[in-house]
Amino acid sequence: MLTLFHHPMLAACRFVRLAFGEYGEELVLIEEKPWARRKEFLAMNPAATLPVLLAEGDVPIVGASVIAEYLDETRGVLKRERRLFAEDPMDRAEIRRLADWFLSKTESEVTRHLVRERVLKPMMPTGQGGGSPDSAAIRAARANIRQHMKYTNWLTGTRNWLAGSRITYADLAAAATLSVLDYLGEIDWTEYPLARDWYSRVKSRPSFRPLLGDRVRGLTPVSHYADLDF
Amino acid sequence: MLTLFHHPMLAACRFVRLAFGEYGEELVLIEEKPWARRKEFLAMNPAATLPVLLAEGDVPIVGASVIAEYLDETRGVLKRERRLFAEDPMDRAEIRRLADWFLSKTESEVTRHLVRERVLKPMMPTGQGGGSPDSAAIRAARANIRQHMKYTNWLTGTRNWLAGSRITYADLAAAATLSVLDYLGEIDWTEYPLARDWYSRVKSRPSFRPLLGDRVRGLTPVSHYADLDF
Repeated sequence: MLTLFHHPMLAACRFVRLAFGEYGEELVLIEEKPWARRKEFLAMNPAATLPVLLAEGDVPIVGASVIAEYLDETRGVLKRERRLFAEDPMDRAEIRRLADWFLSKTESEVTRHLVRERVLKPMMPTGQGGGSPDSAAIRAARANIRQHMKYTNWLTGTRNWLAGSRITYADLAAAATLSVLDYLGEIDWTEYPLARDWYSRVKSRPSFRPLLGDRVRGLTPVSHYADLDF
Repeated sequence: MLTLFHHPMLAACRFVRLAFGEYGEELVLIEEKPWARRKEFLAMNPAATLPVLLAEGDVPIVGASVIAEYLDETRGVLKRERRLFAEDPMDRAEIRRLADWFLSKTESEVTRHLVRERVLKPMMPTGQGGGSPDSAAIRAARANIRQHMKYTNWLTGTRNWLAGSRITYADLAAAATLSVLDYLGEIDWTEYPLARDWYSRVKSRPSFRPLLGDRVRGLTPVSHYADLDF
């Protein structure tokens, strides 16, 4: 079994857990607090970011998209119609574009700020970045959610899955991101019915179950968080 | 010939030009001002980011790392010892980690701020984000350069090329980034002799020549910018 250094409320880590889960591969999960800059962790990843996968031979593979490519090259290629990636280079480019949309663009415009202010700051020591939430940062992130939800709603209205007819990394990246925002009660699903139908389908998959069991101390999820029918 | 929508002072765009250049493939270059949010450009890439490659059949491929993967899948695999990527999945992960270090981490901690404040703001209309440079942002970015240069210097001291014995995407991503900072005179090379030797080797490659000819109106490059021996 491989080991994943992760944090339960980071979308990039959830994405990797979903991908391994889809392939039926269990991971040993180690929760890492990157702000503590633990020496052994920095030795694996000098950028001090999550996730980090300890792959075969304990070689660290750093970053969600790098791990996803590694997983595809070492497992995905053998999965035929269960592969989370396409064969065709252009279809692969579209999957990468969408995964990057959620894990980079949505992350930097929305998710990172809400997670930092609402989840991480209350648990970080003052000297490591903790403190009271910055309400201006929260307001700005909330103002940006609409655009990302509208785009997701539009995508799910034009395609069966986000990047085409099969579930791919694009769906897992998007669902990982939305699951964090949903935990925090930041999504008004009534406005995005097509996105809700799609999310409900992803949420019902066995790979999603562990994420629905995640809890952060002192921060109860929104009441429908683990409901498959919401 | 494929078309690249780019800006000459964005590291991610320079990286893609270098990669095509290494494979001897010419590109039609179209300079795009993403802040103008041109309608036809947004239709190709709703994220309004550069670079965008118009691939075969005028299908847009969005983002430097996505373009690099596409280039590898459609051209690189045939290049044998001239391939800019490795065969082994773990070696590929290391190349991706390093390319991402420069194009994401260095970009968000250093390059983006210096380019925005010193290059783009003076040419952007006020309503689109133009204005006088933010000296605090410039100071913060300059304070971060050291760490990235030290890391580059360390990498070049332990390996022939950044990710091992052959030139790869990692070198092109790093050199593209440093070439932008060097144009702006932001690098004190005397402090980083190993990085300088390595950069001088990359700079001497034919693929680099077009970048050394780039000029931004009203912003003369540092005197040694185009010198192969600096």
